[in-house]
Amino acid sequence: MQINLSLEGLTFNGGNCMTTATLENSVSEKVTDWLDKFGKALESKNIDSALGLMNKDCYWRDLVSFTWNIKTMEGKDQIKAMLSATLDNVKPSHWVLKEEASEADGVIDAWFTFETGVSRGLGHLRLKDGLCWTLLTTMVELKGHEEKTGDRRIAGAEHGAFKNRKTYAEVRAEDSANLGHTVQPQVVIIGGGQGGIALGARFKRLGVPTIIIEKNARPGDSWRNRYKSLCLHDPIWYDHLPYIPFPEDWPIFSPKDKIADWLEAYTKIMELNYWGSTLAKKCKYDESKGTWEVKVEKEGKEIVLRPKELVIALGVSGYAFVPKIEGAETFQGDQHHSSKHPGPEKYVGKKCVVLGSNNSAHDICAALWEQGIDVTMVQRSSTHIAPSGALMDLALGGLYSEKALKNGIDHHKGDLIFASVPYKIMHTFHIPVYDEMKKREADLYGRLKKAGFMLDFGPDGSGLFMKYLRRGSGYYIDVGASELVANGSVKLKSNVNIQKINPKSVTLTDGTELPADLLVYATGYGSMNNWLADLMTPEIADKVGKVWGLGSDTPKDPGPWEGELRNMWKPSNVPHLWIHGGNLHQSRHYSQFLSLQIKARMEGIPTPVYGLAQVHHTR
Amino acid sequence: MQINLSLEGLTFNGGNCMTTATLENSVSEKVTDWLDKFGKALESKNIDSALGLMNKDCYWRDLVSFTWNIKTMEGKDQIKAMLSATLDNVKPSHWVLKEEASEADGVIDAWFTFETGVSRGLGHLRLKDGLCWTLLTTMVELKGHEEKTGDRRIAGAEHGAFKNRKTYAEVRAEDSANLGHTVQPQVVIIGGGQGGIALGARFKRLGVPTIIIEKNARPGDSWRNRYKSLCLHDPIWYDHLPYIPFPEDWPIFSPKDKIADWLEAYTKIMELNYWGSTLAKKCKYDESKGTWEVKVEKEGKEIVLRPKELVIALGVSGYAFVPKIEGAETFQGDQHHSSKHPGPEKYVGKKCVVLGSNNSAHDICAALWEQGIDVTMVQRSSTHIAPSGALMDLALGGLYSEKALKNGIDHHKGDLIFASVPYKIMHTFHIPVYDEMKKREADLYGRLKKAGFMLDFGPDGSGLFMKYLRRGSGYYIDVGASELVANGSVKLKSNVNIQKINPKSVTLTDGTELPADLLVYATGYGSMNNWLADLMTPEIADKVGKVWGLGSDTPKDPGPWEGELRNMWKPSNVPHLWIHGGNLHQSRHYSQFLSLQIKARMEGIPTPVYGLAQVHHTR
Repeated sequence: MQINLSLEGLTFNGGNCMTTATLENSVSEKVTDWLDKFGKALESKNIDSALGLMNKDCYWRDLVSFTWNIKTMEGKDQIKAMLSATLDNVKPSHWVLKEEASEADGVIDAWFTFETGVSRGLGHLRLKDGLCWTLLTTMVELKGHEEKTGDRRIAGAEHGAFKNRKTYAEVRAEDSANLGHTVQPQVVIIGGGQGGIALGARFKRLGVPTIIIEKNARPGDSWRNRYKSLCLHDPIWYDHLPYIPFPEDWPIFSPKDKIADWLEAYTKIMELNYWGSTLAKKCKYDESKGTWEVKVEKEGKEIVLRPKELVIALGVSGYAFVPKIEGAETFQGDQHHSSKHPGPEKYVGKKCVVLGSNNSAHDICAALWEQGIDVTMVQRSSTHIAPSGALMDLALGGLYSEKALKNGIDHHKGDLIFASVPYKIMHTFHIPVYDEMKKREADLYGRLKKAGFMLDFGPDGSGLFMKYLRRGSGYYIDVGASELVANGSVKLKSNVNIQKINPKSVTLTDGTELPADLLVYATGYGSMNNWLADLMTPEIADKVGKVWGLGSDTPKDPGPWEGELRNMWKPSNVPHLWIHGGNLHQSRHYSQFLSLQIKARMEGIPTPVYGLAQVHHTR
Repeated sequence: MQINLSLEGLTFNGGNCMTTATLENSVSEKVTDWLDKFGKALESKNIDSALGLMNKDCYWRDLVSFTWNIKTMEGKDQIKAMLSATLDNVKPSHWVLKEEASEADGVIDAWFTFETGVSRGLGHLRLKDGLCWTLLTTMVELKGHEEKTGDRRIAGAEHGAFKNRKTYAEVRAEDSANLGHTVQPQVVIIGGGQGGIALGARFKRLGVPTIIIEKNARPGDSWRNRYKSLCLHDPIWYDHLPYIPFPEDWPIFSPKDKIADWLEAYTKIMELNYWGSTLAKKCKYDESKGTWEVKVEKEGKEIVLRPKELVIALGVSGYAFVPKIEGAETFQGDQHHSSKHPGPEKYVGKKCVVLGSNNSAHDICAALWEQGIDVTMVQRSSTHIAPSGALMDLALGGLYSEKALKNGIDHHKGDLIFASVPYKIMHTFHIPVYDEMKKREADLYGRLKKAGFMLDFGPDGSGLFMKYLRRGSGYYIDVGASELVANGSVKLKSNVNIQKINPKSVTLTDGTELPADLLVYATGYGSMNNWLADLMTPEIADKVGKVWGLGSDTPKDPGPWEGELRNMWKPSNVPHLWIHGGNLHQSRHYSQFLSLQIKARMEGIPTPVYGLAQVHHTR
């Protein structure tokens, strides 16, 4: 057979042949080889063999498939313990390279598929010197309980003719009317923001009857009710919801009202059972019935729901935290937490003081300045400033951008690449990014420091995302306010606190008195499980423990090391109680794993949880 | 350099090399060669050279790029005339193969890109014996006026800080409030069904200010208001709207209410200026102002709109056609056209007669039977029956299905493949499909005939789609009603008409009397331009002429041959008046070309129309 090749200067003539030929490269061969050995070792339960394929410095992050948990095993000992405990149940098999592997800087990068007894999965592998450095295993679907998409989609029209048929719309209306009344849902999600909505869509696809409880009237209201200049600070490619990506012409930083309208349309299109104007009052687990008892108030009426599983999706910020400051009750102006700030309109001509220096503080100060209002930011501790454009290019650009799309990385792939980096070493991936940011933004940073602003890049220089994961605060993604601070348009008092509040002013710890008609406490939030204390009991809140953070032993994230975000998207120490949330990316990606864990339980599939996280901190 | 190949039994060993290599095949080479020669011939304006690259039996279908029209040139003479008239203006260039070509049954199939002076395009080519058999050129975008998607998307958040900024939502609300009042739209679309909505979305993306006028209150109401068992008869892959495809889990035959809700969400998300509860009263072109004067009644108030361009998107069915039958005014039961049929609920226990035997007649008869109601179908002339499943497999399956998706054919590609088949020879592509259908469905067809049903497959055996294109009627996509006719559950009187209507019965032309409490006229629609007669004047309606049909000289589609659908998506003989519509596929695809034609005019780009269709029939 003649072949027609043109390959880097080598040319052969020839006749007809295949349109394209995939050349097996030795990189893919290496991976296939590794996967074969690994698969065989696991199949024969030869754990030592499997460990022999790992570097000393190795990590295995499993999203549900092996551990029915969200868990990272760090080092051979932890991997050995996990395999010893789980292999018999999991029955892994079919470790197959999914696409051509690649190599860069001595690291081989590969995607593969695999199966367990009850599921199909997708994984990622990094090899160094032929041995595993990082391994990611993720559950994609449960065998026999796949989403009814593509080939599996339902017909819709019932072809044929049936006496007394009910139409699709009638069945839907009936189900919707019955659910929560004559028929109890499998799951209740408390919180109808982007997190609850994304998770609700996953449950809908998996056929898990769910009710979403939301105190505001309409989906998206939590966005509509914010100050008007609010936009996403993460670029659009990072922010898609599950199943229906944002249209290709959406602004990079989408305004709050567009997001709100999208959430509303999405909730309708996805046919979610969304109870707006519904307040969750009290939740109690009823052992005798094997369900939760969830008391809600829906448009003034009390209703009791009895789901098997309860998901809290109220956002990973807890209650607004307002520090108690002497004299607060004497203040004659307006004072409120940033979450209650209505925007600048009422304060034209007034004097404003904003306590705090992170995201909300900056947004609010900028909006006040734009209306020509006199505003002073009071900075108590250092803040990490990450200019939005630089963040987009340097931190997210490789995975979530038009450039990434052109490189064949869509958000599905971006999510998995993100997930494949163990938290333990994640900071090492980020430090160079922020070193580069320091150079690129040297001018702004210099002028900020000159203005007295206290800047940081995280305790180890790893910047924004690590701060976000560790403590959920302590940063501002700069979309313009930093310039105002740097040039003095927004006044700044730094390294001080408010000592005392007076009827028409505040006194700072350095003795300065600032006249004030408005005082905004941009002072953050408490631990999310404070809500649990009120919704359930303080004991339950303590049993669940602190939510968020990695145990990195950095400010606001005390050790010991947990290796995963506390209590997020995985079994908690309170059975049938789950927490969902995070930013739009995390909501999108981790809703997949949370929904699969709950679907498995609904279908009676055994879900032996490996390595349930211990609680080291109660709040 | 060593290469590592494994190619049909030939194996070479080697070291590292590229992950994949594309082998140039001689099929692609042939096409590249042809495109080079063709491009050079056009560039040097050597029309004879270009014609030398064509078969005697050749077709060139152009969607806007060359002709600023929707036009098929059949044979060398017509192609020559077109090129002579347009080459100087068009300035075509850059004819480049887009992906590997393929060959089957002696025909080479290829996709290519090209440019004109003002646009970029995508094309399709079929070569037979090295010469062009069919050529399709389509305009994709206007240079300098591309949709702001992907790389070109807007930032959204105005980074920086601006005193007195207006937010995105405020700007949108302002524009929306002003448009049609203090600011006139470029385009008014009369008709807010799927056609108007799809076209509106295209205009929005292109930055053409547009108002959509709809008599019903909400987008989708025209679907909501139909009888409840209505579903799409075309499978979902065929039906996507522009920009946002239906989710992957939508039923194959989506129920009307789901479609209605999608249209409503889509209209909101796409930020269309949609005026519901608005009736178009009168339209007149104002030569002195160079705009239309469109009088509408919006929620009781008269408003005058002054767009440059007017699009009628009322559906290609005109007014409901109700035959005048002696005695109709004496009828004591309910009588109405199928379009006004409320469904079976009121008629339980009654006797029903449905005049007609096409789509609506079958749907209505089946719905009546499902409620246990006595119904007789009166068939006046033969009908083509295409069972939905067979249609989906045999006719659409290659282009619009999960299988097609797996073969790399999404609906964008499906649309272009569909568009690449000249109408002149389209029936030859379809005849084998319906021959196969006759075999596959022999049992049903046999039993229908036995029951007395008059069956046809179009005058030339080319079946459903040709009937649809030629006359928009005369068929039923069977989703179950045919079984009822075949087995006598729905009674049938065929080859008769209603002679006379009596107070409680109808008398047929064969003398039979049928008792009746309900008479449904499933008797179709008049030509679409009857609406123009009322909206504008009869003279204008006549000047536009008959809408739809190809001039095939088959029943209801008189010659002469037009080669394209009359008056659809292209310049009409009334300047600034356009007609949009068709099924969901046509609406989706041809809205692209209609919107580009109007955008070009808005931007002052010269649009010399080649071959404006003459009017041969006024209604």
